[in-house]
Amino acid sequence: MNPIILLQKMKNWIRSNPQELLKTPIYTIHSHEAKSQDSDKAGKFFTLNAPDWINVIAITEENEVIVISQYRHGTDEITLEIPGGASDPGEDPIESAKRELLEETGFISEEWESLGKTAVNPAIMTNYTHMFIAKNCKKVAEQQLDGLEEIDIEFISIQEFLQKIVKMEIDHSLILSAVAKWLIKEANLSRIM
Amino acid sequence: MNPIILLQKMKNWIRSNPQELLKTPIYTIHSHEAKSQDSDKAGKFFTLNAPDWINVIAITEENEVIVISQYRHGTDEITLEIPGGASDPGEDPIESAKRELLEETGFISEEWESLGKTAVNPAIMTNYTHMFIAKNCKKVAEQQLDGLEEIDIEFISIQEFLQKIVKMEIDHSLILSAVAKWLIKEANLSRIM
Repeated sequence: MNPIILLQKMKNWIRSNPQELLKTPIYTIHSHEAKSQDSDKAGKFFTLNAPDWINVIAITEENEVIVISQYRHGTDEITLEIPGGASDPGEDPIESAKRELLEETGFISEEWESLGKTAVNPAIMTNYTHMFIAKNCKKVAEQQLDGLEEIDIEFISIQEFLQKIVKMEIDHSLILSAVAKWLIKEANLSRIM
Repeated sequence: MNPIILLQKMKNWIRSNPQELLKTPIYTIHSHEAKSQDSDKAGKFFTLNAPDWINVIAITEENEVIVISQYRHGTDEITLEIPGGASDPGEDPIESAKRELLEETGFISEEWESLGKTAVNPAIMTNYTHMFIAKNCKKVAEQQLDGLEEIDIEFISIQEFLQKIVKMEIDHSLILSAVAKWLIKEANLSRIM
């Protein structure tokens, strides 16, 4: 099968009757009706609309990854993550990433690289997460946390960071997404291709 | 800092007043109030409750990755993904993965390996995605699609699969998460550690 022909063949569904059902501080839930152009399938669908998010694999001058721990309300547990957050309206993703890294950890970097963006969940969510790697990070300030944030900081070796992913002590899908992009960019993939 | 001491120090927030706000066919939205045990911070929080999901990096006997294209209602576009879906109530994740692979592609495998699970979004969602790699997949049936599914199948080399991730033609965070676990397991990471 030729993928180009295939992608041209399938068409977006046609939407109608959009409604806002619920507004929370970080997203809104909408519904709409949609009908396939390729068949007679049709139904009502729900989307979670949120601003784009960012996250940062931040590596210090000592070659350690900056990880943060915080209580998370979705899974009701203390998680180990990398710095991240939501873009403010009109803010470039790279500026959001620099701001969140500084606010959550007090660190800055002069070596930023984009790892691209990932669709958070194209089936039900509208937004993307822009992922970055920042190297040679250095501490210049204290944390400045938002109203409801409580964040502790740790520093672990890159090897320990990857081991914690294997052991599922770091398991947030958006962190794993950044790691996938980083590994494809910098690891030696000869064994698997 | 010692991560073990740190994780013991931070405590889960205490919840009260849970409410179900909205029910859709694939998730429900709940709210609750929560109060930190470590400070006087408190607020109202919203969670998206869904069953666990699964996905599969399925590699054929010809060493090609099975990718599927479908219209996605969240981002309103045709995406390229790997097979996946939701676990039925009481169903083991590995059985969900075998079922979804067969339903969506008509392929089976006798070589399944777990890639662990990822928290879909611990900040706002309750569920996990269980990720698998299935090797030497062979076709034994035709697609059997659910009511509203329209799915086309393609076969691409592992190299092309990874290139499509770099080019963001494959960009679903839960697929990138499976790829991260796969690369940590099988790639040569000496360059980055």
